[in-house]
Amino acid sequence: MERNIITVDVTIDKLLAEKKYKTLRDILSTMNAYDIAMLFEDMHDSKIPLLFRMLPKELAADVFVEMDEDTQEFLIKGFSDSELKEIVDELSADDAADIIEEMPANVVKRILRQASPEARKDINGLLKYPDSSAGSIMTTEFVYLRPSMTVEEAIKRIRRTGVDKETIYTCYVVQNNGKLIGIITIKTLLLAEEDELVENLMETNVISVGTLDDQELVAQTVSNYDFLAVPVVDTEGRLVGIVTVDDAVDVLVEETTEDIQKMAAIATTDKPYTKTGVFETWRHRIPWLLLLMISATFTGIIISSFEERLAAVIALTAFIPMLMGTGGNAGSQASVTIIRSLSLDEIEFKDIFYVIFKECRVSLICGITLAVVNFVKMLLVDYLLLGHLKPEQAVPVSLVVSLTLVVTVFVAKFIGCTLPMVAKKLHLDPAVMASPFITTIVDAVSLLVYFFIATAILHI
Amino acid sequence: MERNIITVDVTIDKLLAEKKYKTLRDILSTMNAYDIAMLFEDMHDSKIPLLFRMLPKELAADVFVEMDEDTQEFLIKGFSDSELKEIVDELSADDAADIIEEMPANVVKRILRQASPEARKDINGLLKYPDSSAGSIMTTEFVYLRPSMTVEEAIKRIRRTGVDKETIYTCYVVQNNGKLIGIITIKTLLLAEEDELVENLMETNVISVGTLDDQELVAQTVSNYDFLAVPVVDTEGRLVGIVTVDDAVDVLVEETTEDIQKMAAIATTDKPYTKTGVFETWRHRIPWLLLLMISATFTGIIISSFEERLAAVIALTAFIPMLMGTGGNAGSQASVTIIRSLSLDEIEFKDIFYVIFKECRVSLICGITLAVVNFVKMLLVDYLLLGHLKPEQAVPVSLVVSLTLVVTVFVAKFIGCTLPMVAKKLHLDPAVMASPFITTIVDAVSLLVYFFIATAILHI
Repeated sequence: MERNIITVDVTIDKLLAEKKYKTLRDILSTMNAYDIAMLFEDMHDSKIPLLFRMLPKELAADVFVEMDEDTQEFLIKGFSDSELKEIVDELSADDAADIIEEMPANVVKRILRQASPEARKDINGLLKYPDSSAGSIMTTEFVYLRPSMTVEEAIKRIRRTGVDKETIYTCYVVQNNGKLIGIITIKTLLLAEEDELVENLMETNVISVGTLDDQELVAQTVSNYDFLAVPVVDTEGRLVGIVTVDDAVDVLVEETTEDIQKMAAIATTDKPYTKTGVFETWRHRIPWLLLLMISATFTGIIISSFEERLAAVIALTAFIPMLMGTGGNAGSQASVTIIRSLSLDEIEFKDIFYVIFKECRVSLICGITLAVVNFVKMLLVDYLLLGHLKPEQAVPVSLVVSLTLVVTVFVAKFIGCTLPMVAKKLHLDPAVMASPFITTIVDAVSLLVYFFIATAILHI
Repeated sequence: MERNIITVDVTIDKLLAEKKYKTLRDILSTMNAYDIAMLFEDMHDSKIPLLFRMLPKELAADVFVEMDEDTQEFLIKGFSDSELKEIVDELSADDAADIIEEMPANVVKRILRQASPEARKDINGLLKYPDSSAGSIMTTEFVYLRPSMTVEEAIKRIRRTGVDKETIYTCYVVQNNGKLIGIITIKTLLLAEEDELVENLMETNVISVGTLDDQELVAQTVSNYDFLAVPVVDTEGRLVGIVTVDDAVDVLVEETTEDIQKMAAIATTDKPYTKTGVFETWRHRIPWLLLLMISATFTGIIISSFEERLAAVIALTAFIPMLMGTGGNAGSQASVTIIRSLSLDEIEFKDIFYVIFKECRVSLICGITLAVVNFVKMLLVDYLLLGHLKPEQAVPVSLVVSLTLVVTVFVAKFIGCTLPMVAKKLHLDPAVMASPFITTIVDAVSLLVYFFIATAILHI
């Protein structure tokens, strides 16, 4: 696929140079909205408006939705009012609301001025929901049916009203008061007898989400139940919109990216890498780096207070990085596993004792394995091969490091599994509790353990 | 939603105890397949077969698909041959193939024996595709139309054949030789005139995937193009199956989980946390822990060879954990960002110079910020407040640590962004190049830099 786009790219450049606009229009109208948007992103800005104006109206709106916000803003600024109106008319309300959220105020004003009064109402309705809520990602364009309709009437209604609807595959059965009482798919309607009543065919056990529910819950619901769309209801159970599977997939990808960013101690952003400037990237990364650097003062204090004893057996210093690295890795293995399981709903807070018990057992066998391998390795490599340990130190120092490993891995896994669970309980984001945060705690604890065990065994 | 399931849970337990089977059947048949499967997972094994047998045939098959493999195997072992046949008959071929892939050989034999000859052919057909290929996740149940059909004939055909098809919302237009030449949605058909020809309405620019394409590409395609399903074609362009959006979402979630596991140095598994035993978890985690522990030997060697100089200015030791921690964090920020961008197709190998140039600038301003803050902090906290630094050492040691920070962050971000890109180019998985691996390299480099700068400035 990639290759096709690149080839088209070259062709289009040539045709543009030769001003073969008719051929260009023909090529573009056979292409997919997403592919055209990708093509535009790789293109010099100056060429985009000309090509964009060649697109058929409906395709133009689809392409517009797929483009990144910089290109959208650039195009809007170049549009005449009537061109802008054409695009806005073709946009579905939720797409328009999404675009408006990202635009500067003067552009927003222009867009809303061009929208039809009805569309403006829909867009404003969607804009009032909090960011990341079901309301903010839903579309108000859906097909609803009455329970008393026959299959024939229902299909007729769909034919009549379906053109503008984002999805017509699932229809919603609502009472006169707007209450959602059932759903029915086109599949069911098409496969049923024409005079059957909708209320006899509809599924009455409707899974729905509230307008204020978090978008992550919405995406999970769509994904768990294999839905093409999930209905969104207000507090009185009235149907106000639907979230379609394509928007749910976008949310899943976006939320996962945010989780991954948090795990790597980066401030979250939904902007793609290529769209963030150098200073913006710096702003996303520096807070955690600073915080973690400052909090490493504790490990510094611990080392300083054991300075004299370290000087007595200076060989101990050589193993600090290994101990802290292993502790960090063991801890992040546990924390990342637990964070992912929490976000996939595989476990919840009530499983905390099960999780701790399991991690304790895993950490003990991990710790013992590491300790045994390390003991043998230190004697063979650090003592015999490299001669970094004095003969009288070889066994006791290896023993100190190995014992510390067992305790460090245990503590790391214990903290690594407990903190995300507790965060979840306190309604904090578990992902923030991931590796870097835990590493700092584990670093401090493992150093303390190291020096205490060293003091006890080496009598320093 | 969670709460509802728990309430039903209690109700069902009571009704079971009171043997009110009719009521139970009524309750279960109003529930969703996914919810019933979740209910069974939280239930004692002994109760499941009784409840499962109460389900209507079609629902039973749906519930079966949603259950975890242990419960599936447990149920199959308890089924009579005729019960097993009923379930297998209701399963779609791709679901059956998925289940068979997870089952032990004797269970597989029993399942295949019970399948109808036609179903067995479909299942065997699906099983021959390599794991994680488009062929392995596609379903062979789709609706195809001929280009010469009218809209009326097409809708009739859908009504006649659609019952068993996994999705009827998108229909595929194929020639007599099986070649896929277009797609058409039910939406288009329903909104068109009855005597219009399919070939005049169909979309001819069809995006499809090959049977051997990686499932991640398939999922990306469905997600990028907002498809409900993507057609799968063989090397001759003949339509052999489709992958529906719900399966694509499962792949997205699964692949992301694997990426996250790799980033946290865990061997990948698609088993949920609660289903992996202690020894299995140990097996997934210990290889990387061992490898990273052993590779930390390098940092040990570096420290040992600077042992005497360290003894001269023992205060230097106190800042080793902070330097290594900051290097590790800076590196994983870059590597995780790049890995995610690669997997979302935001960047590719040809962008490597853009990426390196950007990361170099980001790392310089990050490094300088950290260095300035650290310099002030060391003078205020470590020297004035804690007295860990001798007066004549305060400025030079702070300078050494701060300069090392700049170099470390630069190296960390450079390696962090380069390794995943190079891995991608070499067709290795970029995610494996994430934090722990990079940390080990950065640790060694930053220690070397530290000691060289210290030697130069402190004249030790």
